[in-house]
Amino acid sequence: MTEQDAAAVVARARFDAAGLLPVVVQQWDSREVLMVGYMNAEALRRTLVEGRVTYWSRSRQEYWRKGDTSGNTQHLRGAELDCDGDALLLQVEQHGPACHTGERRCFDVDPFLPLPAQAHRTDDPEGTP
Amino acid sequence: MTEQDAAAVVARARFDAAGLLPVVVQQWDSREVLMVGYMNAEALRRTLVEGRVTYWSRSRQEYWRKGDTSGNTQHLRGAELDCDGDALLLQVEQHGPACHTGERRCFDVDPFLPLPAQAHRTDDPEGTP
Repeated sequence: MTEQDAAAVVARARFDAAGLLPVVVQQWDSREVLMVGYMNAEALRRTLVEGRVTYWSRSRQEYWRKGDTSGNTQHLRGAELDCDGDALLLQVEQHGPACHTGERRCFDVDPFLPLPAQAHRTDDPEGTP
Repeated sequence: MTEQDAAAVVARARFDAAGLLPVVVQQWDSREVLMVGYMNAEALRRTLVEGRVTYWSRSRQEYWRKGDTSGNTQHLRGAELDCDGDALLLQVEQHGPACHTGERRCFDVDPFLPLPAQAHRTDDPEGTP
C-alpha cells in the first residue's frame, strides 16, 4: 500500500487513550484466530506500507516486527477496521507458530469451553448446522 | 458452566488497568470474526454461567447482554484465553447480524485490503497455498 493510502487508514482508525488499537490476527485461509496484538499509528503505517505485521509492544515499549527475531513472520493478505474504527482485523499468512510459546495460536492453550470436533473441520460445510 | 468453574476462569484472566478484557467473537462454524467487545470480571462470569454473551459497554458504562434489545443473541459454543490471559476468544452461534449497523460482521465495511476471492470459500481446501 502507498504511504498516502496508509495515511488515510491511519486517519480513520480510532486509537485509545494510550494511542493503541487492538489488532485481531487471523490466518487468511483457515480462518484460525492466531493472536491479539496492539498497534500505535506508526506500527499501523509500517504494517500497511511494508506488508509485514509490526506491533507496538506494551510490555517492552518498542516496535516489534513479527518474526525479526523468531523468523515467524506475518505477511499481510487483508485488513479491515471495524464499524467504529477502534479495532482492526488482519488476515495474514503466518509462517511458523504465531505464539511465543511455540504453539500455532496464542489461544489454543487449555480451552475452558472446547468446541465440538466438527468446528475444526473445513472440508465439510454441509456438516455445519 | 458452574459458578465455581467460572470463578476459576475469571481468576485466570488478566484485566487491564480499567478492569477490562478485549473479547474477539468468532462464528463457531464459519470462523468469521464478527466483532470485538469488552468484558469486566462480572460480564465474563455472567457469560460463562448463562451461556449467552454479556459485554461491558465502555460508552454507556453498563452491562450489555447481546440481543436483549435487538434480538441478535450470541450463544456460547467455545472459549479460550490467550497465552498470557489478557485476551479472550469466544466461539458463538450468532443469531441475526452481529453489528449494530445491521451488517453480519462489524468488520466487513469498506475493507482497505480485500482478500483474494478464494479466501472466502470454505469448500476448496486444495485451493489454498
